[in-house]
Amino acid sequence: MVKSALLQRAGASAIREILEITEQPHVISLAGGLPNPATFPVAALEQATAHVLATDPTAALQYGPTEGYRPLRAWVAERAGLGQGDAGIDHVQITTGSQQALDLLARGLVDPGQTVALADPAYIGALQAFRAAGADLAAIPSDADGLRVDVLAERIARGLRPQLVYVVANFDNPTGATLSAERRRALAALADRHGFWIVDDDPYGDLRWTGSAPVALRDLTDRVITLGSTSKVLAPGLRVGWAVAPPEVRRALTVLKQSADLHTSSLTQQLVHRVLTGPGFLVPHLDLLRSTYRDQAQQLAASLRRHLGDRISFAEPAGGMFLWAELRDHHGDPVDTTALLPRAVEAGVAYVPGSAFAVVGERRSALRLSYATASGIELDHAAQRLLGAATTA
Amino acid sequence: MVKSALLQRAGASAIREILEITEQPHVISLAGGLPNPATFPVAALEQATAHVLATDPTAALQYGPTEGYRPLRAWVAERAGLGQGDAGIDHVQITTGSQQALDLLARGLVDPGQTVALADPAYIGALQAFRAAGADLAAIPSDADGLRVDVLAERIARGLRPQLVYVVANFDNPTGATLSAERRRALAALADRHGFWIVDDDPYGDLRWTGSAPVALRDLTDRVITLGSTSKVLAPGLRVGWAVAPPEVRRALTVLKQSADLHTSSLTQQLVHRVLTGPGFLVPHLDLLRSTYRDQAQQLAASLRRHLGDRISFAEPAGGMFLWAELRDHHGDPVDTTALLPRAVEAGVAYVPGSAFAVVGERRSALRLSYATASGIELDHAAQRLLGAATTA
Repeated sequence: MVKSALLQRAGASAIREILEITEQPHVISLAGGLPNPATFPVAALEQATAHVLATDPTAALQYGPTEGYRPLRAWVAERAGLGQGDAGIDHVQITTGSQQALDLLARGLVDPGQTVALADPAYIGALQAFRAAGADLAAIPSDADGLRVDVLAERIARGLRPQLVYVVANFDNPTGATLSAERRRALAALADRHGFWIVDDDPYGDLRWTGSAPVALRDLTDRVITLGSTSKVLAPGLRVGWAVAPPEVRRALTVLKQSADLHTSSLTQQLVHRVLTGPGFLVPHLDLLRSTYRDQAQQLAASLRRHLGDRISFAEPAGGMFLWAELRDHHGDPVDTTALLPRAVEAGVAYVPGSAFAVVGERRSALRLSYATASGIELDHAAQRLLGAATTA
Repeated sequence: MVKSALLQRAGASAIREILEITEQPHVISLAGGLPNPATFPVAALEQATAHVLATDPTAALQYGPTEGYRPLRAWVAERAGLGQGDAGIDHVQITTGSQQALDLLARGLVDPGQTVALADPAYIGALQAFRAAGADLAAIPSDADGLRVDVLAERIARGLRPQLVYVVANFDNPTGATLSAERRRALAALADRHGFWIVDDDPYGDLRWTGSAPVALRDLTDRVITLGSTSKVLAPGLRVGWAVAPPEVRRALTVLKQSADLHTSSLTQQLVHRVLTGPGFLVPHLDLLRSTYRDQAQQLAASLRRHLGDRISFAEPAGGMFLWAELRDHHGDPVDTTALLPRAVEAGVAYVPGSAFAVVGERRSALRLSYATASGIELDHAAQRLLGAATTA
């Protein structure tokens, strides 16, 4: 009686299988998308909890408005350049992690059979949300500058009619690529001309340690919904994210949010607000995150070069949590990273094969490596073990 | 570009308008479904937070399994009579409040156009979730013993084919009625014979202060999904609820939950688990809740009788948070409680008119009064103001 498509998906959920791999104790996992727990602001959260439960426990524990905790919405609006007034706040919907914003947008903006265009490979959680809404997925190739907007334009010229285009414009998951300024302008112009929505999923934008961010998509067109999250900046276990959207879309999100879970935890929203706005907290905390991930990214890149040499190629990350690489064997031929994975796990290293993120493309020789949680020595061992697995292949 | 049905609903969301009424300071609100904040276990939550952040902050703040925090799932399984072993735990999915369980069940078990049968009047959040999933709603009358299962059986005999039957078997929202043991047996037998699912939404079952609960639906058939919540037992701002379901359904819920919000807050799940399992906590805490709500229900009933006499009729609550009444004018004719509401709010009392819960029926003279949050003196003033509003009508 359970819908058959659901049961099929229950057997084949890639994220779930990957997370299970990472639980084996002898494995150094570069597979997960977990932020580094050493960066969690535990002391600030302890103080914030003591404060909100001591000063107004009812507000922190009672039902709250579906749109979210108003001071947090004001903070998000201010950071998005919308000011702290009512007009700015009206753009902000707080969600139970940005994953929920994706799910609600898929349900609210896309009818079954309508088209969602996105880069191939793509974030698995986005694929799941759009597929659950019955969307037709149009896979657009991507490269080191992100989504090939020229290919999207060509597909549109030949008749593609996307209702929504999904991008992770800053430090894409899985490829780490940042959408170039030129492509952002082209994408915004396409959205204005053809009337589709752009969903810019931005959990990693604050994690840039070198170079400067290209112009934000929301500064180029009104047809953008930007998703934000505290998962990579504070801690994912709080499940607090948001959507910044035109008020018409925000109101539709609020209606869906109400039947989805009434509202996000009042307690975790208040904790997040108190921590983020704590005097002197955010700037040094973001500096800590950036320097931690920069050091680990550089360590992983150096270890991969040292151990694997010209058998691996990748772009050095400028931010975010992921390094996307292509693997070759000693003849210079592509290595099938899906087939390699069981041997890699046996050798004590886990990664996510490119195929897990494929929409239609194959990416047989690609792999996603997260440098966020492993220590420097672990990152070096991981690279060594990857070589070992690839050599015995 | 937002789906038009969504925008229509955005303009007509009854719960939202009601909650806005209750925010006016001069109004004694018996409208909300808010539990009494004086019962929130603030000290226990403070201690639990200090403990989980001191002992294993990573576990409380990192991403967690989609199914939920395993010790909490074990506690839920144990309370549901399934034991604490793997087989019992396999039935439990933790959700972001039980509202999310409703939403996921609607999406996972009901295809657009399939039929959901439920009592008329019904909980607004359930109507929203089933309508959002595109279900056809079959409204079945109810009375003081809950859903008229005989009418449901008759409708089935005449060709109705429900995919799912939704009940609040204990202390229904809005009517406060408890489904009788006889009707539970009849409903379970119908489910077995016709293969539909029963969703038993049970946020109020622990709030019984007199009499004993009829046999649980899940002890009568395997075709039951029982929803539970900490919202009325601890605090709603934590947003922790659950579904206890056959493992096949639980797995389907987990897949949908993953794309809906990945998982429920690790922190609030751990807080809830620690508080619920704290030595000597739960039994006296439930006693406090029951005696608080019993006293307030008796106060409201006495005040309504004193001030309104035979102009109001209702069944005395044996538990839960709501008193469901019918109002008559001094000629003995039914009062239109929807038309009366603006005058009542002006007189300083708010309630939810029966029409807000109507599926197809009208219930023009019914109203739902919550006695959970108002003090004894406020409950008395509320009854007096209700008389005033009804008299000037």
